[in-house]
Amino acid sequence: MTILVYELVGSDLSRPFSPHCWKTVMSLAHKGLEFERIAVPFTEVPLVENGAAKTVPVIRDGDRLVSDSFDIALYLERTYPERPSLFGGPGGEASARFVERWSQMTIHPFFGAAAMLDIHDRLAPVDQAYFRDSREKRNNGRSLESVASEREARHPEFLKKLEPLRSTLSYQPFIGGESPLFADYIVFGAFQWVRVMSPFQYLPAGDPVLDWFDRCLDLYDGIGRSAPAAA
Amino acid sequence: MTILVYELVGSDLSRPFSPHCWKTVMSLAHKGLEFERIAVPFTEVPLVENGAAKTVPVIRDGDRLVSDSFDIALYLERTYPERPSLFGGPGGEASARFVERWSQMTIHPFFGAAAMLDIHDRLAPVDQAYFRDSREKRNNGRSLESVASEREARHPEFLKKLEPLRSTLSYQPFIGGESPLFADYIVFGAFQWVRVMSPFQYLPAGDPVLDWFDRCLDLYDGIGRSAPAAA
Repeated sequence: MTILVYELVGSDLSRPFSPHCWKTVMSLAHKGLEFERIAVPFTEVPLVENGAAKTVPVIRDGDRLVSDSFDIALYLERTYPERPSLFGGPGGEASARFVERWSQMTIHPFFGAAAMLDIHDRLAPVDQAYFRDSREKRNNGRSLESVASEREARHPEFLKKLEPLRSTLSYQPFIGGESPLFADYIVFGAFQWVRVMSPFQYLPAGDPVLDWFDRCLDLYDGIGRSAPAAA
Repeated sequence: MTILVYELVGSDLSRPFSPHCWKTVMSLAHKGLEFERIAVPFTEVPLVENGAAKTVPVIRDGDRLVSDSFDIALYLERTYPERPSLFGGPGGEASARFVERWSQMTIHPFFGAAAMLDIHDRLAPVDQAYFRDSREKRNNGRSLESVASEREARHPEFLKKLEPLRSTLSYQPFIGGESPLFADYIVFGAFQWVRVMSPFQYLPAGDPVLDWFDRCLDLYDGIGRSAPAAA
């Protein structure tokens, strides 16, 4: 049966952009499962599956509803063990959590701030109002414009923080080794988020992290490229 | 047959301190293999096994010599597959590399600088001369004393950089999940390095990273505690 996946979009429905939803889309593609993508703007997230979850991604697999990208990956791994593994064993499962926490605490804070205004500009008006209000509260009242204006100044430090990933990629083409695993999709989700919503050049040409990201965009018939880059 | 492991020591032979050698000792203990530890001061590393390796750890397993802590872990995993796995499968193997690069680039620079003078003070005189000379060259001529003096000032930033590890440990007791894997020993090695050679308090009481480190010190009959902490 086709799995439904609910994904965050802005005003352009062809441009799903949530990092966490992309982790799930890549997980489903990795498993070779049939799935249907359902676009959900910010202000309609509470309506998904009659309010079953507070956040997306959510998947419906028959009568099962699962939310949270990591929990979804674990669910898919347990439910479809005969399909390609998302973790490569229990050790990969445990350390994917470390990769997730690293990505969340190293990459997300910079992207969240740096792309904030670009994301806002690509939402439908009703979502823009929600987004501005919730994000400015989260930033102690600082405007989106003020937070985003530090992007250039903070960029060099961000590139330096990627060094552990960059160095890992000098040993192997993917975080998962010779081929990608969920650990890759965790970090891919973050880069895809800004690729789709922010025209800023986050990675310089020749950066091994950019080469890795390009390899990820090529996976599964280029499903990542199906969402156009922000211009 | 008993495996020989060559380990770096200072003036006190009961205090092996190299982070990389500790990774190997923990790997051997994890596999439940018999091994004999051979103490090597800095200036005798070039003499180990007739100059077979430029660095320690080195292990001799029958007629096989293996160096580099990661390569040794891979060797042990391949050679003794029937014993407890160090990686928990191919995914764990691949992402252990990421943990290694993270540890090397996040923890080691601070520890290397912060403990530099304490390490020097715990070496035999001939090793002290080598250590001061090589480390001051590496630091563009800055004295050990000058580098070490920044310890307190840099400490808060270091504690912040541990956040991905700290957060991971709120999900699971070890980086490897419910029980430790080589990924744990990678980070353990770094903390053991400074525990054994530097009396500075690197982690505050109550830090989940300290609790994890204590759990690691308890492993394998407390082999980590067999080296006394610096006083």
